[in-house]
Amino acid sequence: MQRKIIPDVTQKSVVISLAPNDTATMAAKIMKEKNIAAILVTGKSGKLDGIVTERDLTRRVMAQGLNPDETTLKKIMTKDPDTLAPADSAGEALELMRTRSFRHLPIVENGLPVAMVSIRDLYSVMKSDLEHEIRETEAFVFGDRYSA
Amino acid sequence: MQRKIIPDVTQKSVVISLAPNDTATMAAKIMKEKNIAAILVTGKSGKLDGIVTERDLTRRVMAQGLNPDETTLKKIMTKDPDTLAPADSAGEALELMRTRSFRHLPIVENGLPVAMVSIRDLYSVMKSDLEHEIRETEAFVFGDRYSA
Repeated sequence: MQRKIIPDVTQKSVVISLAPNDTATMAAKIMKEKNIAAILVTGKSGKLDGIVTERDLTRRVMAQGLNPDETTLKKIMTKDPDTLAPADSAGEALELMRTRSFRHLPIVENGLPVAMVSIRDLYSVMKSDLEHEIRETEAFVFGDRYSA
Repeated sequence: MQRKIIPDVTQKSVVISLAPNDTATMAAKIMKEKNIAAILVTGKSGKLDGIVTERDLTRRVMAQGLNPDETTLKKIMTKDPDTLAPADSAGEALELMRTRSFRHLPIVENGLPVAMVSIRDLYSVMKSDLEHEIRETEAFVFGDRYSA
């Protein structure tokens, strides 16, 4: 079965985002408050400008000795990040994230972010699919669903 | 097949660690330099005292408005973290990390850390095992290895 990002892995939701001129400290506070590891950066039109992760805050702010109260997200974000479409396949998305070392990707529809998906979400779906596939194959082998 | 953390998932290695009185800034710099997301904190005897992750630097330092040059790891580390033994099963370790939301766990042997394992490492091993299992079952069903 071909799983799609929406609705099989996640749903459209209110996407948590900050503006390009917001600060690293604000991003850290919201990540903590919302228990998330990445936050989208959107412009005035709501269009996706970039993404900032815990890793960016660690490596591009703290490791550089920058003051997070004075460091804006537009300086540290990954601009124009890779995105997924709602109808993309979960399996291909997982492989993309695994090979390119992304843990989070925004889902974009008609130019606007409608959800964020994590490699953890995709892993859960893929694991249950693989286990289902094994059970189905075993059921066929051992004949509890088909006559011998 | 029952995979073990060592040697099936990772090997013993020089474990990167800092001391309890080292600072958050030092941890961020080393994480960036070594391209790692978590660092062990060890005492004088080399014994494991704690672990500090990018998430801890984000939530326990930056989100709190603390100065990372003056914040010691002993204040922000997770003390006495869960650990794995070299002979622990990879599958159980993956489930433990998934359900408890750990992305990294130290491997401890005779009281001393000998490696660090990430959920990504474990996922790779488990994925290849599951795929292997499916192929084996299919080979049995479709008879390219056993006579009908």
